[in-house]
Amino acid sequence: MSLIIIGTVAFDAIETPFGKTDKIVGGAATYASLAASYFYDKVKIVAVVGDDFGQKNIDTFAEHRIDTEGLQVKAGEKSFFWSGKYHNDMNSRDTLVTELNVLEAFDPIIPDNYQDCEYLMLGNLTPIVQQTVIKRLKNKPKLIVLDTMNFWMDIMMTDLLETIKMVDVLTINDAEARQLSGEYSLVKAAKKILTMGPKYLIIKKGEHGALLFGEGKIFSAPALPLAEVFDPTGAGDTFAGGFIGYMAKVGTVNFNNMKNAIIFGSALASFCVEKFGIEKILNLKQEEVAARVQEFVNLSAFTIEP
Amino acid sequence: MSLIIIGTVAFDAIETPFGKTDKIVGGAATYASLAASYFYDKVKIVAVVGDDFGQKNIDTFAEHRIDTEGLQVKAGEKSFFWSGKYHNDMNSRDTLVTELNVLEAFDPIIPDNYQDCEYLMLGNLTPIVQQTVIKRLKNKPKLIVLDTMNFWMDIMMTDLLETIKMVDVLTINDAEARQLSGEYSLVKAAKKILTMGPKYLIIKKGEHGALLFGEGKIFSAPALPLAEVFDPTGAGDTFAGGFIGYMAKVGTVNFNNMKNAIIFGSALASFCVEKFGIEKILNLKQEEVAARVQEFVNLSAFTIEP
Repeated sequence: MSLIIIGTVAFDAIETPFGKTDKIVGGAATYASLAASYFYDKVKIVAVVGDDFGQKNIDTFAEHRIDTEGLQVKAGEKSFFWSGKYHNDMNSRDTLVTELNVLEAFDPIIPDNYQDCEYLMLGNLTPIVQQTVIKRLKNKPKLIVLDTMNFWMDIMMTDLLETIKMVDVLTINDAEARQLSGEYSLVKAAKKILTMGPKYLIIKKGEHGALLFGEGKIFSAPALPLAEVFDPTGAGDTFAGGFIGYMAKVGTVNFNNMKNAIIFGSALASFCVEKFGIEKILNLKQEEVAARVQEFVNLSAFTIEP
Repeated sequence: MSLIIIGTVAFDAIETPFGKTDKIVGGAATYASLAASYFYDKVKIVAVVGDDFGQKNIDTFAEHRIDTEGLQVKAGEKSFFWSGKYHNDMNSRDTLVTELNVLEAFDPIIPDNYQDCEYLMLGNLTPIVQQTVIKRLKNKPKLIVLDTMNFWMDIMMTDLLETIKMVDVLTINDAEARQLSGEYSLVKAAKKILTMGPKYLIIKKGEHGALLFGEGKIFSAPALPLAEVFDPTGAGDTFAGGFIGYMAKVGTVNFNNMKNAIIFGSALASFCVEKFGIEKILNLKQEEVAARVQEFVNLSAFTIEP
């Protein structure tokens, strides 16, 4: 049994008010698989890079027991590259460069030994590629989580809706939930989106936490108030990876376990933003993760005497 | 022993995407005292109206056992009037009319039988008038809560800082916390503001809940996700009134009690926005309030097995 994560594996160049980086390793599948690896040891990625990515970077996955058999390396081609600059509030950013490169013709290959997939994370990518992965799995996974963004709503809504139909959990941010549903109220938006296919909806609200809708219930997860957000890149992917990694670990799909999965995903994401890129989530100790989760407990617990 | 609430008692005319009102009763002290009356039975208001306000409206306070001896009625003068129109997102609004009228020369009178004040809520008003009330109380109250807004930061920062120095709890929204502190991070903002006088800071984040800072701790309170916000007017005042009313009821000032006070204040505010003006918070049953508080518990509770 395994957890498959599909998404980008890429180079980023990031500028924040705190500094800037050269090309560093990034990509949704990178962040998500690293995050998931803290909870589950059968994480496998499906992605594509150029031969500029380099064996040393590929080894990073192996160091976290992440299977890279599904990572295609295209000879003579270049990896996906994104460069962006965050504004002072760290909540908005400008994209400076997007070079699709190998991503342009990405045809996801599912190795035979990935066919034991029980948990599938579809990281942000074109909806067509996301669908292809679902179709190439011989058995329907126990849980499919889809992450997407406004970009695909703008240019490929029909395909995106097809993909959304096929998944169990959708994770998007509040603006995207409003765009997808045409409803301003998140309660109404969720109601509508839960008729589109997914049984659960996670609305990510950044510094305001996240909302989980499903089984007729709502869970409001806090975000950890941080003195400094150093680099928000990958926080959403880290959240999603931590979420599905924790779900794979507990092994039972229900609302209660998802609540905890959101807390663990949020904890990982709160580490992610403390340094540039993947640096901070490369070498966390389990005790650090547990202590961070306890901070979430302390942050939101209250007891009302009846 | 009593809870004194100072603020506006006024007329509002409100337009939202759901409809519009003629002149209806509003004002920070109105919302706050009604909210507080659900938890505490010695609520007293300090405010001023013109004789256009009318005995019938004054009787509303008596019906909630709210003492109006400190409510001055100025013969031949008109009550404060505000008119506003909410945008479709309900998060922003345009002020259409502001007529200060009696408020222009408001000199707050503290009747002798208000000198037993243990809890003081300074609703949004000019910082000078807020200070005057503190100075006219012969004994320092056990808890002083100050509500203010960006308007006073823009035009009377020095006076506002003087008032802030004199209080125990400050309630402002996130944008105001950033403006007051010059810090974008709310953690840094809170740290700075807690050196300005108050021992506790409540940052109201509207649909994203509220944060409480103090005693070196942080509490993140959820907001109830609502299908429909009918009219947000007075929600902040209702929150503050519910907060201090609950604190007066429990009678011990500490972080833990404040956490619950924020939940009770949020519950009252969640009712407030369901109808125009004060309509919804006029006649709530205690069971309704308890059920709403239970919704907050269900919304945010999770259990992490160690």
